[in-house]
Amino acid sequence: MSYDPDNVFAKILRGEIPSTRIYEDEATLAFMDIMPRTDGHCLVIPKTPCRNALDASPEQLAAVIATTQKVARAAMAGLGVDGVVIEQYNEAPAGQEVFHLHFHVLPMREGVRMRPPGKMGDFTEIAGYAEKIRAGLA
Amino acid sequence: MSYDPDNVFAKILRGEIPSTRIYEDEATLAFMDIMPRTDGHCLVIPKTPCRNALDASPEQLAAVIATTQKVARAAMAGLGVDGVVIEQYNEAPAGQEVFHLHFHVLPMREGVRMRPPGKMGDFTEIAGYAEKIRAGLA
Repeated sequence: MSYDPDNVFAKILRGEIPSTRIYEDEATLAFMDIMPRTDGHCLVIPKTPCRNALDASPEQLAAVIATTQKVARAAMAGLGVDGVVIEQYNEAPAGQEVFHLHFHVLPMREGVRMRPPGKMGDFTEIAGYAEKIRAGLA
Repeated sequence: MSYDPDNVFAKILRGEIPSTRIYEDEATLAFMDIMPRTDGHCLVIPKTPCRNALDASPEQLAAVIATTQKVARAAMAGLGVDGVVIEQYNEAPAGQEVFHLHFHVLPMREGVRMRPPGKMGDFTEIAGYAEKIRAGLA
């Protein structure tokens, strides 16, 4: 399996496609999913290339899971949610659509189910959730 | 949030409840889920106590994600599947039922969906998938 440097997340990393960023450090970037399955749904990716968790280096995995934890805690605090689901898909039969490693962080509220994938979110709402997660990081 | 030392996975770690183990090292244990949502569904946990990814230490998270990668690769090779979903739930509204950190490793086959949670699997079948994942580790 190979890495395509023109995948959407590589373009986001290069600034060729806009994104609503909520956190970044030397090794990772967190930004909002534009097709949110729950309110506040965001993604964590490594800044260096890898296709998914199957070909990631130990350093990439450790960095991405550490940022995923940070963002999950920030979502709990900033959005005031009751739980967080973390998901990560490897290869198309597992639902992977963008072939740059990414962890989904899905804030969960009591009694509210995930929406089906593939529906574009409202950008003003997404910006509002991003602001709250950023506040939770502080 | 606190850690209950009598949760099911703590009992599995202490050998008080049987499990079908597929891999272990100093820091982590991987074993089969007894309510498999896909064929070969297994779990990866740290050997030390933590409730979920929200309170885990950086060392626990790094160790568990490294073993999760190892088991995911072994599932691809040993079961000959086409992909792997990784899931991890934090707190009850996110679907967490056992309050000891665990990552689900869900082997995925082209065109085959996950089954709903909560249905006990066939132990002979589970043992067969475990054997194949162990072979994939070798």
